[in-house]
Amino acid sequence: MKLGIQVIAFDAYGTLFDVHSVIALCDRKFPGRGAELSRLWRAKQLEYTWLRSLSGQYEDFWMVTESALAFACRSLNLACPPQTREDLMESYLHLDIFSDVRPALAKLSHFKLAILSNGSPRMLSAAVESAGLNDVFTDVMSADEVKIYKTSPRVYSLVSQHLGVSDSAVAFVSSNFWDIAGAKSFGFWTCWVNRGKLPEEELSVMPDVTMPTLDGLVNVLGDPTESEEECPEV
Amino acid sequence: MKLGIQVIAFDAYGTLFDVHSVIALCDRKFPGRGAELSRLWRAKQLEYTWLRSLSGQYEDFWMVTESALAFACRSLNLACPPQTREDLMESYLHLDIFSDVRPALAKLSHFKLAILSNGSPRMLSAAVESAGLNDVFTDVMSADEVKIYKTSPRVYSLVSQHLGVSDSAVAFVSSNFWDIAGAKSFGFWTCWVNRGKLPEEELSVMPDVTMPTLDGLVNVLGDPTESEEECPEV
Repeated sequence: MKLGIQVIAFDAYGTLFDVHSVIALCDRKFPGRGAELSRLWRAKQLEYTWLRSLSGQYEDFWMVTESALAFACRSLNLACPPQTREDLMESYLHLDIFSDVRPALAKLSHFKLAILSNGSPRMLSAAVESAGLNDVFTDVMSADEVKIYKTSPRVYSLVSQHLGVSDSAVAFVSSNFWDIAGAKSFGFWTCWVNRGKLPEEELSVMPDVTMPTLDGLVNVLGDPTESEEECPEV
Repeated sequence: MKLGIQVIAFDAYGTLFDVHSVIALCDRKFPGRGAELSRLWRAKQLEYTWLRSLSGQYEDFWMVTESALAFACRSLNLACPPQTREDLMESYLHLDIFSDVRPALAKLSHFKLAILSNGSPRMLSAAVESAGLNDVFTDVMSADEVKIYKTSPRVYSLVSQHLGVSDSAVAFVSSNFWDIAGAKSFGFWTCWVNRGKLPEEELSVMPDVTMPTLDGLVNVLGDPTESEEECPEV
């Protein structure tokens, strides 16, 4: 099987950027309740992106994330004064990257590398800059450009529009199964980085490959400059 | 304030129909794990409707509900043989109604009453029939007609299309805040029946009225045949 991949588009949060520092800060601000808070915050963050997209009520990811935090605190009866809220929100602007990210991206540098994320442009550029990845990506694309979130096809179509390749030449990499399902339905080749060792969702779609980290991605994708070479079976 | 409401459209599951019997059956099938299973089942059921709608991968609510059950069982390491799955699914076809539903509907009979639900036509007709509500509703509308789920405006627009009224003459009643947010954004007057005593979601939209049950709805909506009468303030 020859994949013919030219562009690798990565999801950002949870895929490249480790949101563990957000979780750790939740636990420092609310000792013993941090895990519960960060779980509900994340769940609501996603839920609000889907609901706002479906009803045509787009607000950017910073605002959605802040709304989700406000609901999560209120729902858990946690008083969240303005300074605490600000500190928690700011933690999204300087996230660590997972340890496998930098070496994997270096090995994949013969592809065009890009980010395709729900994050607002300001959030994404802060995270990329903070992680020292400024020179790595050809493009950093935000759902904000089309004012709707994943899994809308309008978000995934940004890649071909920005980079001038066909959708079938795009490998999409995400740690979120639902994002993989959206990307696969859209027409991308997909790699699920199952960092959380989670079960597959029941969305009638399966990733092309599943890996625990980004380590093996280069072996699957091969070298695009050697166009006659067959990719190894996975 | 005169509301000018002509049609009352009700959400089905959790609003009219009590899904407690589903939860109880979960606990009989999986002693001690029922609450956990039914919570995850419901969360995934909703999540899958939003994701499938957003990516244009509609499947009907029966299938989505069954997929959500399969995921929830797998995720919780609960073996769910075919007969158990069938029993759990069948419980959706004969749900009890909440005790306030029948008296409230009787008092509201001078309005056109309707159901607007994500449920598939077969699921809805079975539930309506099982609850003995066949003669109560002018119309039972399913998202299946437009092959997308709430909160898509295409679902809410079914009411005016079916019943020949303007959207501003529709009162929409749901126990799900997210559904209220979608309906309010669309243009309906909305009543949140907050049966679960839940906090309001942060979706930049508030219901017109919030009530613990359907009991007081007639007092708010007044009598549409007395068109000159002012509605009481809430």
